[in-house]
Amino acid sequence: MLLCDIGNTSYHFYDGERDYREDVKSYNPLTCKQKVYYINVNSQLQESLKALDNWIDISLHVSWDKYYETMGIDRIMACEAVQNALIIDAGSAITVDIVKDGKHQGGFITPGASMMNKSYAKLSSKLAYSFNFDLDLDKMPKNSQDAITYGFLAPLRAEVIRHEMPIVLTGGDAEKLHTIFPEASIDKSLLFRGMQIIIKKGGLC
Amino acid sequence: MLLCDIGNTSYHFYDGERDYREDVKSYNPLTCKQKVYYINVNSQLQESLKALDNWIDISLHVSWDKYYETMGIDRIMACEAVQNALIIDAGSAITVDIVKDGKHQGGFITPGASMMNKSYAKLSSKLAYSFNFDLDLDKMPKNSQDAITYGFLAPLRAEVIRHEMPIVLTGGDAEKLHTIFPEASIDKSLLFRGMQIIIKKGGLC
Repeated sequence: MLLCDIGNTSYHFYDGERDYREDVKSYNPLTCKQKVYYINVNSQLQESLKALDNWIDISLHVSWDKYYETMGIDRIMACEAVQNALIIDAGSAITVDIVKDGKHQGGFITPGASMMNKSYAKLSSKLAYSFNFDLDLDKMPKNSQDAITYGFLAPLRAEVIRHEMPIVLTGGDAEKLHTIFPEASIDKSLLFRGMQIIIKKGGLC
Repeated sequence: MLLCDIGNTSYHFYDGERDYREDVKSYNPLTCKQKVYYINVNSQLQESLKALDNWIDISLHVSWDKYYETMGIDRIMACEAVQNALIIDAGSAITVDIVKDGKHQGGFITPGASMMNKSYAKLSSKLAYSFNFDLDLDKMPKNSQDAITYGFLAPLRAEVIRHEMPIVLTGGDAEKLHTIFPEASIDKSLLFRGMQIIIKKGGLC
């Protein structure tokens, strides 16, 4: 079974064993003759994918009443993969969602590392540092690089920890955030596992 | 005694009773014949102010060993004004500093409301909402506007609260943040009070 998570920059495929990416600009979905089960947050591709019989949009099989209307389908798939967890999907945005007894309790969104870096640099050239993910967040910072690293990471950590839930990290920056959530598990295939559950529930294959 | 806090966009004056602003682009400091005690974070104005005998740079009278080399002089003045407090200066950046027994313990920096709004809008047009400062942060968000508001405010609140310090709010967005820190006091003249303390300590007048 071929799964695909489509974003603004890439088609992220998963064949049950390995995952690989194709660039949105150069990849033509017509070239894929297999059946592909997909989710898509890229509005520009929506119509062209609909026209392809072998590309199956599994968002149509989600129980949307469990979520809210404008919630990203990628967040929903991650939530479908767990019963009791706080999920951190760390990419260009960081989304944090809480699931208890299989029910979505709500979630929040904060800019990811790259966007935060850009924001600090725009605020002042004196804050144009990269983040130091090994910073000890139990000590108050006393230099500019630590002050922005702490400002990005410590508030997120404090908010996440107060929920006292098992933490699952996913997304491109999962490893980076693992240093501040050492108790978390990393599951880079979380969305795909959620997709598999929806496909099974919906009797799609 | 005329005090002035100079930033990238304005000269912020305080005469001991009232405060007023002059635009950096249009104001000529030569026109002021009074003695002015100032702090300045605008590197473009540094040389021209130095040349004026009646403009006194009070950063030269700070005990810098209490702080770190690249720390903003505005943050230092706020710290000088308190003995035991967590100071939140909410402007284009939000700086959070902790002072215990008159000693700076360190601090962090996070982008302010305006920069965060721009970041969310850049991440996705679906996140281009203004913040709802009246949001109940004890409930997990279930719509996009709440998800970004919570993402901006709840982590900051969680980190600030865990320090269990008296909170002092200052800066242009102090009132907005008062809704999430109702126990905080607001002191819009905090920097100027710090400046007055330095002037007195240094025997400058």
